[in-house]
This record gives sequence, structure tokens and C-alpha cells, in this order.
Amino acid sequence: MAPFRVRVYLEDTDAGGIVYHASYLRFLERARTECLRSVGLEQSRTFALDVSFVVHSMTLDFHKPSSLDCELNVTCDLIEAKGARLVFHQVIRDASTGADHVSARVTVVCIALGSKRPRRIPVEVLAALGPQRAATPAL
Amino acid sequence: MAPFRVRVYLEDTDAGGIVYHASYLRFLERARTECLRSVGLEQSRTFALDVSFVVHSMTLDFHKPSSLDCELNVTCDLIEAKGARLVFHQVIRDASTGADHVSARVTVVCIALGSKRPRRIPVEVLAALGPQRAATPAL
Amino acid sequence: MAPFRVRVYLEDTDAGGIVYHASYLRFLERARTECLRSVGLEQSRTFALDVSFVVHSMTLDFHKPSSLDCELNVTCDLIEAKGARLVFHQVIRDASTGADHVSARVTVVCIALGSKRPRRIPVEVLAALGPQRAATPAL
Amino acid sequence: MAPFRVRVYLEDTDAGGIVYHASYLRFLERARTECLRSVGLEQSRTFALDVSFVVHSMTLDFHKPSSLDCELNVTCDLIEAKGARLVFHQVIRDASTGADHVSARVTVVCIALGSKRPRRIPVEVLAALGPQRAATPAL
Repeated sequence: MAPFRVRVYLEDTDAGGIVYHASYLRFLERARTECLRSVGLEQSRTFALDVSFVVHSMTLDFHKPSSLDCELNVTCDLIEAKGARLVFHQVIRDASTGADHVSARVTVVCIALGSKRPRRIPVEVLAALGPQRAATPAL
Repeated sequence: MAPFRVRVYLEDTDAGGIVYHASYLRFLERARTECLRSVGLEQSRTFALDVSFVVHSMTLDFHKPSSLDCELNVTCDLIEAKGARLVFHQVIRDASTGADHVSARVTVVCIALGSKRPRRIPVEVLAALGPQRAATPAL
Repeated sequence: MAPFRVRVYLEDTDAGGIVYHASYLRFLERARTECLRSVGLEQSRTFALDVSFVVHSMTLDFHKPSSLDCELNVTCDLIEAKGARLVFHQVIRDASTGADHVSARVTVVCIALGSKRPRRIPVEVLAALGPQRAATPAL
Repeated sequence: MAPFRVRVYLEDTDAGGIVYHASYLRFLERARTECLRSVGLEQSRTFALDVSFVVHSMTLDFHKPSSLDCELNVTCDLIEAKGARLVFHQVIRDASTGADHVSARVTVVCIALGSKRPRRIPVEVLAALGPQRAATPAL
């Protein structure tokens, strides 16, 4: 999938004059949402399968600050899908310079809507994610 | 009720070096929530009465910018409670100087939890709000 | 200018299951920023003219709640440009149904970058805004 | 230092009915800010020393979801101060049950205000942090 494009608005910045570090988590999640939507896994579909995804853990590296008005490309590569968990590798790059600004490894867990307990990812979800996985080079 | 105290953190500011205008709506709502909690109307209680409150309209005046690290006092005066609606007058002041930074008039509407439709405010809620109203001078 | 399109992500919602009311202020500002950018008034240009714009006052009406994943169109019509102030009328509509969700009247004030004091809007800015104004029907 | 207390408001939650994962980064930073303030390192002081601190990397584990209205305790233990970097271990716990909700390891880097480049932490800052470090058990 093509990277997801994000424009930096005033809402995303802080008094340091750059993007507030927690704003990047919003950008990363927008890209994951669109990545899942692109293979038919929008929320209405996952809800129909009685599952939801929640963030379980993250590692984040902030390489370079981003400025107001700049455009960022956010990638979303699925690097693992096993049991109840999906692991994504994501990079936020400056759309003009291509420089890496943030990189992240995000683990999300599949939970049952009713019990809110982790559950095995449904085969329909794994099937939809298939092409996504195939497109992902080993890291 | 005493004003609600808010400290300004980096999360609340923007690249202009001051508090981002939408952050004040969060401060206003924290104060309304504590105002309702102080008369026993925390969410668990209103939910038991099958009601929820949603913001219906606001007017906002931004008088002075607020800076990182400053402390603000947020007032919450109930000026009307009729039918399905509550109207609050709120002021955000610098806790050191007493200067007005933001003033707002906020109308919230009581809705039924199930139907999500506006409904008359339950008498139990009006009774709880009584002292709050009595303490409020006419504007 | 065509309305600005916003997708609702998880970050924009609250535990009520709908868009958090303060999130709409972020959507409104994104649309104003793009409206100004479309006539060449991105921040680098206004900074070069020694001016910045800050929100001075707003009135907001929340007509209908917006849901996760929905798409919204945000309009931005300049209805007044006089002295130091610009007044915008903005509407947030559901992109599928066309229903009005939020309407707002937003007054922004032109300030000098150095003094942070209100100042008359530069003629270069008024000239750039000209077509924008011409395109706006009287309300 | 005593843990920093955070109340969960509607602004912090999402349509999943729980605290939005990025909101925890705001809670963690509030606690770090108060931790530094408690030893005299508020922003005005660090600015006078020509330094600022920016988040460089984080690892986050989300153990349990937090609900609207609950109170959380946020700890902030300095576990390393060397060269240009400070490393904090932080835990967010339910104030009622004591259960761990989030744990984090946060690395911040000291930068020179002017150049925005990493620089050695000033001895005045290290001296102020001394008691903080002494109070921290090895992990």
C-alpha cells in the first residue's frame, strides 16, 4: 500500500515549535486504520466478526522533529500475524526530503467484542491480511 | 464551588507558543465534570437515571493567551436549567494575576441513554443542582 | 473553494461513541488553514508579512453527532474582512448524507509577530483574500 | 516523589469506551514535568541554563484499559543520567486498585536552545536531579 499522507496542522504542534511527540501516535494509527480499510477490514467488518483491535505495546524512536505545515508519509508494514497479535513496523518520513522522522514497532491484540478478552485472529481477517503480509519484506 | 485549577502542560500548547484554542474546551469540560461530581452527579449516577449530557452549543471569547506552565482557574456557574437543557457561564482566569483569559457560555442537553434523544432533565438531577443554582447570581 | 474533507479516526472520538466536541475545532481550523493556503497565505507567507492570525471568538452549534469512520466536509466562507479581523462562517456536513453536523462563526484577529498586538490586515493579505470574498454570498 | 495523580476525563477516552492509547503519553509527560518542577527544574530554569529536553525514544506496554472518571497514579523514576540523556521508568496505576495499567521507559535528550543540537546535561541540572537519582532503586 502507498504510504498514508499526513499534513501537520497547528493542533499537532507544541510550544517547542515542532510536532508534539504524542501526535505521532495519532498519525501512526490513522495509517494503520487506512491500511486495514484497504483490505476490507474497516471497523464495521471487524465488528461483524466479533473482534476489535487494541494497542498492546509500542517502541518509538523520534529521529527528527517535524514542523508546522510540512507533509509526512506514514508507512504501515505488517511483519507478524500470529495467535491474537499483529505486529506492524511503521515509519514517518518527510514527504519532501524523504528523511525518517519517527519509526515505530506496534503490537496490536485482537479482542472479542463481548468479553474484551484476547482471542485468536479470525481466519477471515488473516485471509484479508494475506496480500499485505506477502508484500512485506522480512526486516 | 471553588474554581477548578488547571496547570498548562506542553500537550495544551501549539507552535504559536501559547495554549491551543481547542485546549480550552477540554479545560471547560473538566470544570463542568467536577462541578457535577461535587453535587453527586458523576457519570455512574446519571447513567443510573438513564441520562447523559451532551454539548449543544457554545459561545467562546478568547481574551488573553495563556502560557506553558501557568495555572488557570476555571469557574462553572449554572445560569439556567429548563426542560432538557442546562446553561453554564464559565470563565478561565490566570490563577496568579486574576486576569480573564477565556469566557464561555455552554449549553448542554440531557439525552436518554437508550434513544439518544433529548429528554426532560430528571427531577433528581434538578434537585442535586439546586444548591448550585442558588449559589449563582443572576448575570 | 471545495469543502475540505476530514475522515473521523479513533483519536477524534470519546467514550460516548461519537466525535468529541473539541475535535470539531481542529477540523474547522484545518479547513481555514487550507482555505488560506489555497490563496497563497500559508504560514511562511504571512510570517514574511510580519503577521499571524489568532482565534478571537467563536460561536458553535452542534446539530448532529458524527461517528467513527465517517467522512465530513468542512466549508470555510469568509464573510467579513475589516480592520484587524476576519470572520468565517463554517459548516461541517456528513459527506454521504449532506446533513449539517456543526456550524460555526469564527472571528480571527491579525496580530503583529513581534508585538503580539492586533494590527490592521496587510493589503497583500486582503488582495489575496479578494477572490475568496467575492465567492462568498451574503448570509 | 509521590506519584502524580491524574483524573480521566471524556477528552482522554475514545469510542472503544476506554482511555485512548496516545492519552497516556500526555499523562506520562505531566508526571515528568512535575517531577522536574519538584527539584527546581521548571522550564524557566532550564531555559536560563540554555537547555530544553525532548523525547528521544519510548517503549510502552499497555497492560489494562482505564475507564472514564477513574483516577490514576503516575510514577516517574530517573534510572539514568549520562551525557546528553535522561532515562525515566514510569508506571501508570489505578489509584483505587493499585493495578498496573501502563508501563514505560522514556529517554529524553538535552538540547541547546539555540542550536537545537544535543548537548551535555549542565552540572546544575545533574545536581538538582541528584536526590531524585538517589531515591531511585536499581531496576
